[in-house]
Amino acid sequence: DPTLKVFTLNSNKELSKEIAQHIGIELGESSVTKFSDGEIQINIEESIRGCEVYVIQSTSDPVNQHLMELLIMIDALKRASAKTINVVMPYYGYARQDRKARAREPITAKLVANLLETAGATRVIAIDLHATQIQGFFDIPVDQLLGVPILANYFANKELDDIVIVSPDHGGVTRARKMADRLKAPIAIIDKRRPRPNVSEVMNIVGNIEGKTAILIDDIIDTAGTITLAANALVENGAKEVYACCTHPVLSGPAMDRIQNSQIKELVVTNTIVLPEEKKIDKVTQLSVAPLLGEAIIRVHEQLSVSKLFD
Amino acid sequence: DPTLKVFTLNSNKELSKEIAQHIGIELGESSVTKFSDGEIQINIEESIRGCEVYVIQSTSDPVNQHLMELLIMIDALKRASAKTINVVMPYYGYARQDRKARAREPITAKLVANLLETAGATRVIAIDLHATQIQGFFDIPVDQLLGVPILANYFANKELDDIVIVSPDHGGVTRARKMADRLKAPIAIIDKRRPRPNVSEVMNIVGNIEGKTAILIDDIIDTAGTITLAANALVENGAKEVYACCTHPVLSGPAMDRIQNSQIKELVVTNTIVLPEEKKIDKVTQLSVAPLLGEAIIRVHEQLSVSKLFD
Ligand SMILES: Nc1ncnc2c1ncn2[C@@H]1O[C@H](COP(=O)(O)O)[C@@H](O)[C@H]1O
Ligand SMILES: Nc1ncnc2c1ncn2[C@@H]1O[C@H](COP(=O)(O)O)[C@@H](O)[C@H]1O
Repeated sequence: DPTLKVFTLNSNKELSKEIAQHIGIELGESSVTKFSDGEIQINIEESIRGCEVYVIQSTSDPVNQHLMELLIMIDALKRASAKTINVVMPYYGYARQDRKARAREPITAKLVANLLETAGATRVIAIDLHATQIQGFFDIPVDQLLGVPILANYFANKELDDIVIVSPDHGGVTRARKMADRLKAPIAIIDKRRPRPNVSEVMNIVGNIEGKTAILIDDIIDTAGTITLAANALVENGAKEVYACCTHPVLSGPAMDRIQNSQIKELVVTNTIVLPEEKKIDKVTQLSVAPLLGEAIIRVHEQLSVSKLFD
Repeated sequence: DPTLKVFTLNSNKELSKEIAQHIGIELGESSVTKFSDGEIQINIEESIRGCEVYVIQSTSDPVNQHLMELLIMIDALKRASAKTINVVMPYYGYARQDRKARAREPITAKLVANLLETAGATRVIAIDLHATQIQGFFDIPVDQLLGVPILANYFANKELDDIVIVSPDHGGVTRARKMADRLKAPIAIIDKRRPRPNVSEVMNIVGNIEGKTAILIDDIIDTAGTITLAANALVENGAKEVYACCTHPVLSGPAMDRIQNSQIKELVVTNTIVLPEEKKIDKVTQLSVAPLLGEAIIRVHEQLSVSKLFD
């Protein structure tokens, strides 16, 4: 059997260590630094000839830096005769640029797929790809894992009464449905509409939330505008309390202020993206995807189906 | 004839304006900004369907940001049906990572070539590619322009007496020879050698520099260690005065201090890389490559040879 090796880049070092621990191996020896002029310098300090290599990197902020680290690492692994180069991307940056919404827009999510393949990736393992279509942007195998089981499990252990799972927009209903199935709860949908042009949006709630504990779920929370407006609308419309959760805590710009000042009682996220100290406020709970990714790596290496991870 | 359009990205806006002026057109309307989370957002504000498009971008510091701007722009232009996408890179970043100097190193200069082609570039126009071999990393046409004529012309106009052109290392002798031919001057070479292991290098000078005005020439000056040590060695060995010049003023880390405190009387560079205010010290003279690039674009567009630019 070819040897399994796991390397980390700079986006998620702690998570990578946890993953290696879960698998029961040491992380591969490498260093990723910068030359004086800002160019990335990568040194792989051990032979990887003939090995099955897994590289862990989220293309989170600084996204261009993290993406180039990943591409250069793949290039180095390829030239050093790795047998397979499996890219583990807990968070896939540029995923929201997945279509031409207006004329002459790039489709950067597809560009990133092309760049990864060109560099030499032979497989991608990712979590919650924003649009499932992104799997089709690749001509190599893509294993998509889901954050829902981890998030649902956390809420199941809280033993909350009379809950309702709420999607903050139409696009997220399938995800809310998956969560609701696991928690044996009903769903509701925030149905934003602009009644007439130049009139502000109204937050209409489809489904019964009165007196219930609402759990909002999304894949990404970025500036937190949508999710905090949704939380406040839920309370105004009679929800008893509001939790929110997501897989990818991008939390940029005004996000932390908005969350702090919102009706959200607790925000539950995973560690696909590292939270800097200033974002680790009391309201925020972070769950680890290390067991999920560790298990996925073991299963892929042993050529077993990863869909078993969701039973 | 297909319409010629020139777009700029964020690395060299002033140079791009100058180039457009030289050609006698307006720059294409576009904006390159960042989303709240740092992802690049590009808007092309005019139709480019069927046009021959030239995009001007140096992959200078911040190199990963500038490279991704370029790749995303190329993707957007391709999807907007540009007839050709001509990438004008006054400075080609990562050019020094052009070979495996040690085991398991990436060859990032080749990776960058692959990424540009994958994104959709149909031609590259660059200046002084560090290693001419980088042209061969591409499967699309590459026009390499030279900084030497611009630098030589500046020194010719200074009417210095009794000059010698000096290469700071063995790799730069061909460049020094080209400069010397234009200035009808002899050459010399700094021949760095380590006499024994663990003994510091000695700066041996091959060629006659005694009492002469020495002009050091390199393609890139980065941390300026090599060039300032060379300048000081030249003065110690009897040169009357020392000028230095290069095409690409990377000037990172300790570069400005070293230059300020060195025997270099004047450092002449071009604007392939923008100099921030703090690097515009009295000793530094910056020459524009806009006429060269403007002329090259006109000639390529008219399907004329660019080698005529060096007569
Ligand atoms: N990093 C980003 N931050 C905010 N908006 C983005 C980002 N990337 C893409 N978009 C825009 O978000 C929209 C897609 O988001 P969604 O409707 O949630 O899939 C598109 O119109 C994109 O132009
Ligand atoms: N950005 C950089 N800054 C400093 N050294 C670099 C950089 N990129 C590559 N190198 C190293 O520089 C050497 C090549 O430089 P040269 O001999 O001048 O072609 C290689 O050993 C590279 O590892």
